[in-house]
Amino acid sequence: MTMKESTTMPKTEYTIEPGKQEIVSTTILDAPRELVFRAYTDPKLFAQWWGPRRYKIEIDKFDSRPGGEWRVVHVGDDGSRYGFRGVNHDVVAPERICATFEFEGFPGHVALQTATFEPPGNKTRLVAHQVFESVMDRDGMVASGMEEGANESMDRLAELLESMKSSK
Amino acid sequence: MTMKESTTMPKTEYTIEPGKQEIVSTTILDAPRELVFRAYTDPKLFAQWWGPRRYKIEIDKFDSRPGGEWRVVHVGDDGSRYGFRGVNHDVVAPERICATFEFEGFPGHVALQTATFEPPGNKTRLVAHQVFESVMDRDGMVASGMEEGANESMDRLAELLESMKSSK
Repeated sequence: MTMKESTTMPKTEYTIEPGKQEIVSTTILDAPRELVFRAYTDPKLFAQWWGPRRYKIEIDKFDSRPGGEWRVVHVGDDGSRYGFRGVNHDVVAPERICATFEFEGFPGHVALQTATFEPPGNKTRLVAHQVFESVMDRDGMVASGMEEGANESMDRLAELLESMKSSK
Repeated sequence: MTMKESTTMPKTEYTIEPGKQEIVSTTILDAPRELVFRAYTDPKLFAQWWGPRRYKIEIDKFDSRPGGEWRVVHVGDDGSRYGFRGVNHDVVAPERICATFEFEGFPGHVALQTATFEPPGNKTRLVAHQVFESVMDRDGMVASGMEEGANESMDRLAELLESMKSSK
């Protein structure tokens, strides 16, 4: 049995209201929030779950402190490269990360994203909130296939958390 | 004749639509954008215009680079202190500054703000855009007397720019 088959894949609920410039998603993860926080702030762990499986991840910068910069590149099989970057406003272990986000393919359009880790028992309720500079930016993110990509990230994160739990 | 009397005070136009989570303001300043950009990025200059005249300004941190942190405190006559802080996402001379913003009296509520300096001739068209994490946060900022405070800042900025122009 592979890790993937043994893990219950998480279900993410999205709130995307017409005419608003935000996206809110909620995911219940079967791991304590300390592990989830580590998966978000340790570059070696982050590279194992963030984004679709079909890309390799290159971590260019990953300074998980307030004021720290991050830059991550997805690399496709054909060599295509998609860069993402931002800075951290708040990194509060194990509760919350607030950072800016910019896709380098759409420069000058910045989002503010906050991940909150709530601890119901031994699980984590992850609330991911993104606010965009315009409704158009928000709608463009939704149209880009964001939900599918985010769901795949959450599946990969759940798998990683399973392996982190068993190696504790 | 004092500096204040000799300066034409700028007029700022605000766009604050019901149910939205953003504020956009536009101000025409009678100075080249290189000077406006300096007034935004040099802490000694910034301390001369940002906020109402009735406060003293303490600059705690002011690193005007991407990833740089800023923290500014308004100090009242009675010793009351109001802290504001954030990090810079982009600082692109002389065009644009994109940064996070948090009032320490309302912790955990962060805004993303972008100031764009457009150069129509020898004037600067300043477009200030703020996007909040919720409509409630935006409405709270409006209710706090933001417009009056921002107008006073723009008056002070215009005065500073006049003195910068004459000392060139």
